Amino acid sequence: MPHQLAHHAYGKHRVRVSKIKRPRRGAASTERHELIEAAVDIELEGGFAPAYTDGDNASIVATDTCKNTVYALAKDDPFDTIESFGRTLAEHFVSTYDHITRAGVTLHQHSWARLLDCPHAFTGSDAETPTARVVAQRGAPTRVEAGVTGLMIAKTTESGFSGFHRDAFRTLPDTDDRIFATELTASWVYADQEVDFVASRSAIRKAMLARFIDHYSESVQQTLWLMGQAALDACDAATSITLTMPNKHHLLFNLAPLGRENDNEVFVSTDEPFGWITGTVTR
Amino acid sequence: MPHQLAHHAYGKHRVRVSKIKRPRRGAASTERHELIEAAVDIELEGGFAPAYTDGDNASIVATDTCKNTVYALAKDDPFDTIESFGRTLAEHFVSTYDHITRAGVTLHQHSWARLLDCPHAFTGSDAETPTARVVAQRGAPTRVEAGVTGLMIAKTTESGFSGFHRDAFRTLPDTDDRIFATELTASWVYADQEVDFVASRSAIRKAMLARFIDHYSESVQQTLWLMGQAALDACDAATSITLTMPNKHHLLFNLAPLGRENDNEVFVSTDEPFGWITGTVTR
Amino acid sequence: MPHQLAHHAYGKHRVRVSKIKRPRRGAASTERHELIEAAVDIELEGGFAPAYTDGDNASIVATDTCKNTVYALAKDDPFDTIESFGRTLAEHFVSTYDHITRAGVTLHQHSWARLLDCPHAFTGSDAETPTARVVAQRGAPTRVEAGVTGLMIAKTTESGFSGFHRDAFRTLPDTDDRIFATELTASWVYADQEVDFVASRSAIRKAMLARFIDHYSESVQQTLWLMGQAALDACDAATSITLTMPNKHHLLFNLAPLGRENDNEVFVSTDEPFGWITGTVTR
Amino acid sequence: MPHQLAHHAYGKHRVRVSKIKRPRRGAASTERHELIEAAVDIELEGGFAPAYTDGDNASIVATDTCKNTVYALAKDDPFDTIESFGRTLAEHFVSTYDHITRAGVTLHQHSWARLLDCPHAFTGSDAETPTARVVAQRGAPTRVEAGVTGLMIAKTTESGFSGFHRDAFRTLPDTDDRIFATELTASWVYADQEVDFVASRSAIRKAMLARFIDHYSESVQQTLWLMGQAALDACDAATSITLTMPNKHHLLFNLAPLGRENDNEVFVSTDEPFGWITGTVTR
Repeated sequence: MPHQLAHHAYGKHRVRVSKIKRPRRGAASTERHELIEAAVDIELEGGFAPAYTDGDNASIVATDTCKNTVYALAKDDPFDTIESFGRTLAEHFVSTYDHITRAGVTLHQHSWARLLDCPHAFTGSDAETPTARVVAQRGAPTRVEAGVTGLMIAKTTESGFSGFHRDAFRTLPDTDDRIFATELTASWVYADQEVDFVASRSAIRKAMLARFIDHYSESVQQTLWLMGQAALDACDAATSITLTMPNKHHLLFNLAPLGRENDNEVFVSTDEPFGWITGTVTR
Repeated sequence: MPHQLAHHAYGKHRVRVSKIKRPRRGAASTERHELIEAAVDIELEGGFAPAYTDGDNASIVATDTCKNTVYALAKDDPFDTIESFGRTLAEHFVSTYDHITRAGVTLHQHSWARLLDCPHAFTGSDAETPTARVVAQRGAPTRVEAGVTGLMIAKTTESGFSGFHRDAFRTLPDTDDRIFATELTASWVYADQEVDFVASRSAIRKAMLARFIDHYSESVQQTLWLMGQAALDACDAATSITLTMPNKHHLLFNLAPLGRENDNEVFVSTDEPFGWITGTVTR
Repeated sequence: MPHQLAHHAYGKHRVRVSKIKRPRRGAASTERHELIEAAVDIELEGGFAPAYTDGDNASIVATDTCKNTVYALAKDDPFDTIESFGRTLAEHFVSTYDHITRAGVTLHQHSWARLLDCPHAFTGSDAETPTARVVAQRGAPTRVEAGVTGLMIAKTTESGFSGFHRDAFRTLPDTDDRIFATELTASWVYADQEVDFVASRSAIRKAMLARFIDHYSESVQQTLWLMGQAALDACDAATSITLTMPNKHHLLFNLAPLGRENDNEVFVSTDEPFGWITGTVTR
Repeated sequence: MPHQLAHHAYGKHRVRVSKIKRPRRGAASTERHELIEAAVDIELEGGFAPAYTDGDNASIVATDTCKNTVYALAKDDPFDTIESFGRTLAEHFVSTYDHITRAGVTLHQHSWARLLDCPHAFTGSDAETPTARVVAQRGAPTRVEAGVTGLMIAKTTESGFSGFHRDAFRTLPDTDDRIFATELTASWVYADQEVDFVASRSAIRKAMLARFIDHYSESVQQTLWLMGQAALDACDAATSITLTMPNKHHLLFNLAPLGRENDNEVFVSTDEPFGWITGTVTR
């Protein structure tokens, strides 16, 4: 059989780890806890071909071992951010195993916010999800990307869409007042690892949101470009950013047959189909 | 065929409506908008048997008409709360159609919070979902329930579980320090309709959360009971409340085989299986 | 606090158990396996009030113990059907624990079908899901319901909807040719437990499907009624059946603005909103 | 602002289209229908930069127009397969609009199988989903990939995992008898477009399944390699294939504390975490 194994990779996905951090010790009910939680995906590349082609497992670090590694290093590492913990994990695989040439670690954080100033109580959110992706590669600097997904934002005016291409299949009219609702996914690349991950994330998030509302939007495309530029302007450490902004259409409901005028008030919210717009902005 | 049609109902589900409310008119970019969005389920009961048994559709108010009704009344009604809009809808069906004896309307709100004080921008959340259920019935007062679902809360200490039933299938040890994480669903019944829905919801939500953190929890059951009582104490208008608190287990990961001690720090988050605990508290 | 604990229940949900059954032993590669898998929800009622009201856990059979019970009894029981295994579980709780008065067990089967006649290989399906619910109650006969959910069926003609109620909010025109697509959920009650669960399920499923296609449908309501009657006629052991048939609308796309006629050919498939129709048929 | 727009693309996702095909005309109740349904994602690249950087929409073919195109061409095209319809769509965008340089079309088919030999009734499946991806590019041949996702397959024996890397974090023991369950995603590339899409898909699917069961599996990696080779051997038109096989772990439940021996019979089915294995096989 003259077939080639052109690419191969494996690992463990959805390793869900949480850690309680106790900066100082006190009575259980008064010491101040931090709670961090993430789902970790690990993907390894390297000298694993014999496992595929010869049924020889000697080189395989079991995906179960990958899972154990996440929990062991969650104990050892301060786990301050998903970026720093991801870096610890990615570099561990490359430095520990000679035959692993590349380790990609993707993390989705489950956000917990303090509840009512209680030192040990939290309220969770499933919507806005901080993300990180770290790639450690033998002989190259580790690459850290940070990002966010599921960040729902909307403007109820100051958004239009007009003057677009006209052809036989166009039925959509021009509008200068529509709802602009999206669920932002963004990820940005850091120039090196000596970055304050917390401050950088905060600055980029704030800059994107401020830009989202500071202009009349001609199109999702235009606003995406403006938000991407704002992110880079707010954080010198970021060299490029990719934004994806699905257009979560809120369609004006036609009330005319029901004897009412819809003065841009009542809308149908839809999930399908949705406009999909992406762009990458670099310096 | 001597079969009976013992029960029947129909309606439209997942009617997703959003409304922009403009309390005062101004320039588009400065007037202050409110945005409310909900998914509405309508369920009708009444004299529809001939449609089932005789193929006679004359009594059916089409589910498409139900959908139209939601949008038409979203225009007419102030849509201040899902409770009040649900009541408008439920009573509309019973008062408009002589052959409808009962209309149940369930609403799931999609929460939008103002973004950065912008008059027309919002950020959304999928997690905590306010709910309402209104049942209008011919010859009886309309019944309004309000509630919440998807409210994730957790305590990293001040929670234990010990002294429970011991038998041949028990393997779980006693513990006096565990993570208590749940995704609260609650719904409460109002004595009558003359209720300030906004203030009542706020008072009940706040009371439940404050109670969640003010005691050492012997069990989910005990905390549920305490939270239910607190809710009723906080709102005279509520006559009963049902809480359901799945136990979203965070299991201590066994680090011993990896040469580390887990001092209640590193946990596996799990979705399945989960403990399921419910209770109804009345005055 | 004069509050009452009006209702309470608890248990374990989503206990996912699978079992390999080996009717006869042979070489591993030739013996014929059966594979059965289900997610089990257990809900217990009884003398648990002190756990809620006094923080006294002595009566609680831990939800972890409930989980253990599922796996232990999966070993002991033949696990031939979800109905029989559910009965074993429900009756175990009531017969083992004096203070448990009622045990409800709900099972969702994950279907595995044999793959290519291999004795030990299977292909799975997530769509059509056999269900069972068994309630064991102290001093009363155990009640067994069987059912199905997620059974997607569609007719591309022989279905219409006309002559329905006409009012100010109706915009839907009459039609005598539309797609009828639904995702059937049905559950039926057995008169007693001496039932051939496999044969009964098969007969009811077959009868419902045959009836779905044998007539011109005036409405979902009418077809639901006919299918319910057919189910009862096909199985003497079933005393009643409840069907729920969401109308998964396939809407004709308006091609006229695009210069084409849509001769009932091209449709938009939608999930939201959907018509919701239910009915219970008894003897 | 010296920022660059390094990459950009947009389109419409989740355009859900279904088509009834009537090979010959007859009485409505006897003519034989075919029903095909898919969700279509369209992604366009080309001269759209001014929309991003200058707010100039003239080059934008609205995502709404993309949607209209799907339905119009569903009317014109025979829509025999998702591959051929995808090709029609992708090439339409590049040939119709001078400024579009690349059009990617991804299709997920919703499978409908004939119900009980009825000429116009079908039963659906959500699990195994045929996929296609077609990329039309100006000045280059159109590239067609076909694939499948969600194909659940399992072996209850003839699968082991032993001899893998041993280190401080390994706790998993060797085994020579375990359940091998996966949800196969595969996609293969066709050398050119003159392919019988139906026969090729059928041959590849059959070859992969036959290979899945014909050997003792040393690892998921080995079986993936064997299945990939079998696919290429079964279809000359395919030049490469990528398979991804998550390991849907079925873990042996420890019955020892419950006084029972688990003779490889009773398992816990889990979704998280899961092993993730991928490989690309070429000629």
